[in-house]
Amino acid sequence: MIDGVIVTPVKIIDVTGGDVLHAMKCKDFGFAGFGEAYFSTVEQGAIKAWKRHKKMTLNLIVPVGKIRFVMFDERNESSTYGIYEKIVLSLENYCRLTVPPMVWLGFQGISKERAMLLNIASIPHDPNEADGKSVEEIEFDWSSL
Amino acid sequence: MIDGVIVTPVKIIDVTGGDVLHAMKCKDFGFAGFGEAYFSTVEQGAIKAWKRHKKMTLNLIVPVGKIRFVMFDERNESSTYGIYEKIVLSLENYCRLTVPPMVWLGFQGISKERAMLLNIASIPHDPNEADGKSVEEIEFDWSSL
Repeated sequence: MIDGVIVTPVKIIDVTGGDVLHAMKCKDFGFAGFGEAYFSTVEQGAIKAWKRHKKMTLNLIVPVGKIRFVMFDERNESSTYGIYEKIVLSLENYCRLTVPPMVWLGFQGISKERAMLLNIASIPHDPNEADGKSVEEIEFDWSSL
Repeated sequence: MIDGVIVTPVKIIDVTGGDVLHAMKCKDFGFAGFGEAYFSTVEQGAIKAWKRHKKMTLNLIVPVGKIRFVMFDERNESSTYGIYEKIVLSLENYCRLTVPPMVWLGFQGISKERAMLLNIASIPHDPNEADGKSVEEIEFDWSSL
């Protein structure tokens, strides 16, 4: 596990007429403030990679479809420097993924249906606080599942 | 319009591989603090009504399917006492619905697919701060669209 990454199982509550799915409470472990909430959708096979936030803590939930997340720790001072971490989230593995600042993140839609994540971000979107790399710039075999 | 209810158009950003859908930023009009974020799903035709929060401000977004929201103002001191307000939200009418405390709210799934809302609630869920009424207790013709 990459230092600072947290995976928290989240409750799905059976309700007549339609379930309720928890996402995050302000007292939950991993909550680092509320800056913005937004959805990102991802088509089957599509890859959105790589991005690294300097300040933002991400809290990611997948209420629709299935998404594979890959993280890579390039923090020199980290005890898990050089480590990759992978996790697949969906309603079948309904967890919240907390990604701390300075960890590289990429993700891929791996369900037939368009998948969707919710990010509860600790600060509002700011293009100046994120770095990007093209998918080829950090080695990972996205074709294998 | 019921006093205190806010409808805010929200951006959908066209991104290769899958769109990004805004939901809420901490500086947005209608933001009343972050207590909890959760999803509520609703099957076609199903009605979840009625509920009234004493303290919670709701900020509702519909990223999947189509939901009809109905609000009823029973606040004695309100300038819009006795008024109903209806709105249908979906990706075609992608808005954020802000519902202040003490306004009755009900909603209904009106898409073939199971619909889903995100509530960015100003306080964490607390059963003691909400009142409920059965669907029949506040008059509304849910069968007409």
